[in-house]
Amino acid sequence: EIESVDFKSSNRTVTLPGLVNIQTLVPGISTAASKDFEEVSKASIASGFTVVGTMGTGSPKGIEDKASLAIARTNTRNHAHCDFFLSMNANVDNTHDRLKDTAALFIPFSPIAGRALANVSEAAKYFGSWPANSPIVTDAKGTDLASILLLASLHNRSVHITGVSSLDDMALISMSKDKELQVTCDVEVYSLFLTREETGSKLLPTKVEQDAFWNSLNVIDCFTVGTLPYRLASEQGTSVAHAGIQETLPLLIDAVNKGRLSMEELIAKLYTNPRKIFSLPEQKDSYVEVETDRSCVIASTSGPFAGKVLSGTVHRVVLHGETAYLDGAWYTTGSEGQDLSSVTQAITKAIEKVTIPAIATSQAS
Amino acid sequence: EIESVDFKSSNRTVTLPGLVNIQTLVPGISTAASKDFEEVSKASIASGFTVVGTMGTGSPKGIEDKASLAIARTNTRNHAHCDFFLSMNANVDNTHDRLKDTAALFIPFSPIAGRALANVSEAAKYFGSWPANSPIVTDAKGTDLASILLLASLHNRSVHITGVSSLDDMALISMSKDKELQVTCDVEVYSLFLTREETGSKLLPTKVEQDAFWNSLNVIDCFTVGTLPYRLASEQGTSVAHAGIQETLPLLIDAVNKGRLSMEELIAKLYTNPRKIFSLPEQKDSYVEVETDRSCVIASTSGPFAGKVLSGTVHRVVLHGETAYLDGAWYTTGSEGQDLSSVTQAITKAIEKVTIPAIATSQAS
Ligand SMILES: [Zn+2]
Ligand SMILES: [Zn+2]
Ligand SMILES: [Zn+2]
Ligand SMILES: [Zn+2]
Ligand SMILES: [Zn+2]
Ligand SMILES: [Zn+2]
Ligand SMILES: [Zn+2]
Ligand SMILES: [Zn+2]
Repeated sequence: EIESVDFKSSNRTVTLPGLVNIQTLVPGISTAASKDFEEVSKASIASGFTVVGTMGTGSPKGIEDKASLAIARTNTRNHAHCDFFLSMNANVDNTHDRLKDTAALFIPFSPIAGRALANVSEAAKYFGSWPANSPIVTDAKGTDLASILLLASLHNRSVHITGVSSLDDMALISMSKDKELQVTCDVEVYSLFLTREETGSKLLPTKVEQDAFWNSLNVIDCFTVGTLPYRLASEQGTSVAHAGIQETLPLLIDAVNKGRLSMEELIAKLYTNPRKIFSLPEQKDSYVEVETDRSCVIASTSGPFAGKVLSGTVHRVVLHGETAYLDGAWYTTGSEGQDLSSVTQAITKAIEKVTIPAIATSQAS
Repeated sequence: EIESVDFKSSNRTVTLPGLVNIQTLVPGISTAASKDFEEVSKASIASGFTVVGTMGTGSPKGIEDKASLAIARTNTRNHAHCDFFLSMNANVDNTHDRLKDTAALFIPFSPIAGRALANVSEAAKYFGSWPANSPIVTDAKGTDLASILLLASLHNRSVHITGVSSLDDMALISMSKDKELQVTCDVEVYSLFLTREETGSKLLPTKVEQDAFWNSLNVIDCFTVGTLPYRLASEQGTSVAHAGIQETLPLLIDAVNKGRLSMEELIAKLYTNPRKIFSLPEQKDSYVEVETDRSCVIASTSGPFAGKVLSGTVHRVVLHGETAYLDGAWYTTGSEGQDLSSVTQAITKAIEKVTIPAIATSQAS
């Protein structure tokens, strides 16, 4: 067992469950010999995330067929510093080829997330073929979002909208929830802390929009790192695979300290709701110790928050009963992380059995 | 009884039921002392339409409140040369003020049809308050259309889309029908016979789109005159209230003669389906005699088909047992046309009683 050797410099340590980053961009997920997954999983465990749901960029390919899935799995083998699950990327051509070893379907409508679908008819095919009990995730916006929600309604199935970024989209989701459509959504954490006015980037919400997001926390099921930090960094010509992961928890803890967010909301949106939506198993003996009043200075090379002082530092992360990260040092080898994709499917099936009992047939065959 | 005095110049006369133009633009419907309704109803009866569903332009006002409804009713009194029904125009402010004497709600998304709604939240309010059994009609396109279909799905109610004008919109409606959403739609007849290439007007479909419309006749429930002829004429600076009405039946009969359309489809889309969708009563002893092989030359001042020779001429129109129009002459005074708005409501209620029996309560109160 690893011991903490630093002196107690903080008065307030809270223990959080291992957090889940449901949309974790791994650019080279399906690129042979890519180190992106390892880099991302290492940054994640050090930042309080014990589970990451991966998404590809689709360049050259996301997880779209058996070959690209095999490469992704090879890239994770012995290079997983936290647990993870994989999603299959819709690419128009793979409508009927569900990849068994993935936990969800991702339908991309923006180029960052894959080969973007051109229209709703292409998306409709996936709604016709993807199992009703397995998550469908999409970054659809505007018209595409309305169409996707319509598809979910017509097919009477759930859908998760990732990276909600406009008030109109938020209103559409809110209205759909009011009418009991099975829709959930997340916002990318950067969009809660950076504005268009501050950065000059159109990738970010205006101050007015951002304020509205904060006032809509009840509509937002999850927080995620998402693709926004990577896209912002790319705009500056400095993209790195792990962009945004490190800052996420300090930004949110800082917001808790400032009374903008409750710790319960943080846990709901980074643990409880992600687990529900993706049928994630309980991670036994996994947790995150956070020193909530200890200042952390974002590394001066690390994106738009470089040099900013936030209160909230990850002190220790324990995964499966073993300290994985402590005081800036990793104690993992890369063999710790498990692929949860198949487990989520088993959980989904078990839940289904409980809630939808099969009709008893009295006739012997 | 009026006798036909002309010599039989045609070998083929077919008798059609009195036709319905479900979206009949009446620009000054709620403008005091406007003659637009009279002009339109007179053009309609002479063109084979014994019922017109009116829509305003919203300039200065459509039928939006009690005062504008009262003006509209005054404009129709003794100036109705055919039967008609009125629709209430949604204008954001009248969410909770259903006008009892209208037959449907029209939700405008383009300025021609009223004060266009800005977004789906505004439309959502009407879906929450408008009676489930009364028609909602809208000219929504693109994002707005997807949102409207979503609202209809979430509220489990019917909606009629008028003036479908793009393949994407057609695909969305087709997909919704496949999943048994209660959606019906119409196309404006001009869009089946004029192309962007021929006219240079962006109001019209491209040749490719038009061909696709012809191949989607099974998705199209109704034909309508709609606002397209008026908008086209306005583009040329020659708008008249009755634009497009006269050409509609000759264009369609000509298409029947050319084998592009069956007479059964024509009747379904201009009579059977309109009656079903708007709960229109049977018009006793009302019919249209059409000489299907008699050429008619569109008046040389009358829009994009001016001077064109079409086979198909309205010979006689009989309304309520009396000849209203014969061989180019009107035999109406303007007192013949009845306002069917309240009748449609009574029919809707009667249908509802038959199909949705009230739950019997055994307990005396
Ligand atoms: Zn320590
Ligand atoms: Zn490693
Ligand atoms: Zn389907
Ligand atoms: Zn595990
Ligand atoms: Zn005659
Ligand atoms: Zn008159
Ligand atoms: Zn509603
Ligand atoms: Zn009548």
